[in-house]
Amino acid sequence: MNPIGNLNKLFDSRIRLGVMSILMVNGEISFNDLKQMLELTDGNLASHLNTLEENGYIKVHKGFVGRKTNTTYSITKSGEKAFKGHLTALENMIKSTR
Amino acid sequence: MNPIGNLNKLFDSRIRLGVMSILMVNGEISFNDLKQMLELTDGNLASHLNTLEENGYIKVHKGFVGRKTNTTYSITKSGEKAFKGHLTALENMIKSTR
Repeated sequence: MNPIGNLNKLFDSRIRLGVMSILMVNGEISFNDLKQMLELTDGNLASHLNTLEENGYIKVHKGFVGRKTNTTYSITKSGEKAFKGHLTALENMIKSTR
Repeated sequence: MNPIGNLNKLFDSRIRLGVMSILMVNGEISFNDLKQMLELTDGNLASHLNTLEENGYIKVHKGFVGRKTNTTYSITKSGEKAFKGHLTALENMIKSTR
């Protein structure tokens, strides 16, 4: 059995793992909150968010707080399904090492 | 708390996760066995093995079976320690999503 057979290539980055795990437990979260929680630069976070959005795993919401733009993100149904599958595959891999 | 704070950048690849998890439970394993188990091409596997070796996480053993060269790999103490730390961080991240 290939121990990494069911791992999702798109989640081959700590940063995307971090974004998805935060969005799993937070309905909607802003770019700045994600950046602080994951201790990242703007550019680094933005590129990973684009990839996740292009693959339909997260949704972007452009809003305003007062006159300031406020971009927030939420997980999609297919994102949740794909990430849960990845976590299960990770757990099976971890079990195989014990 | 940064959910990915303790994740090791070097294990940001399914293939390296696969190699390390196999080496955790197999004292020594050949290039070809790794290639079959992980369903990879020679080049792809070789480049990841080089990275793991350069970082001292695995050791290479060049031997012979009859007149044919037989290269095998094993995990080092520091490799085991780093990978166990990564698995613990993954488990904590998974727990944070539930």
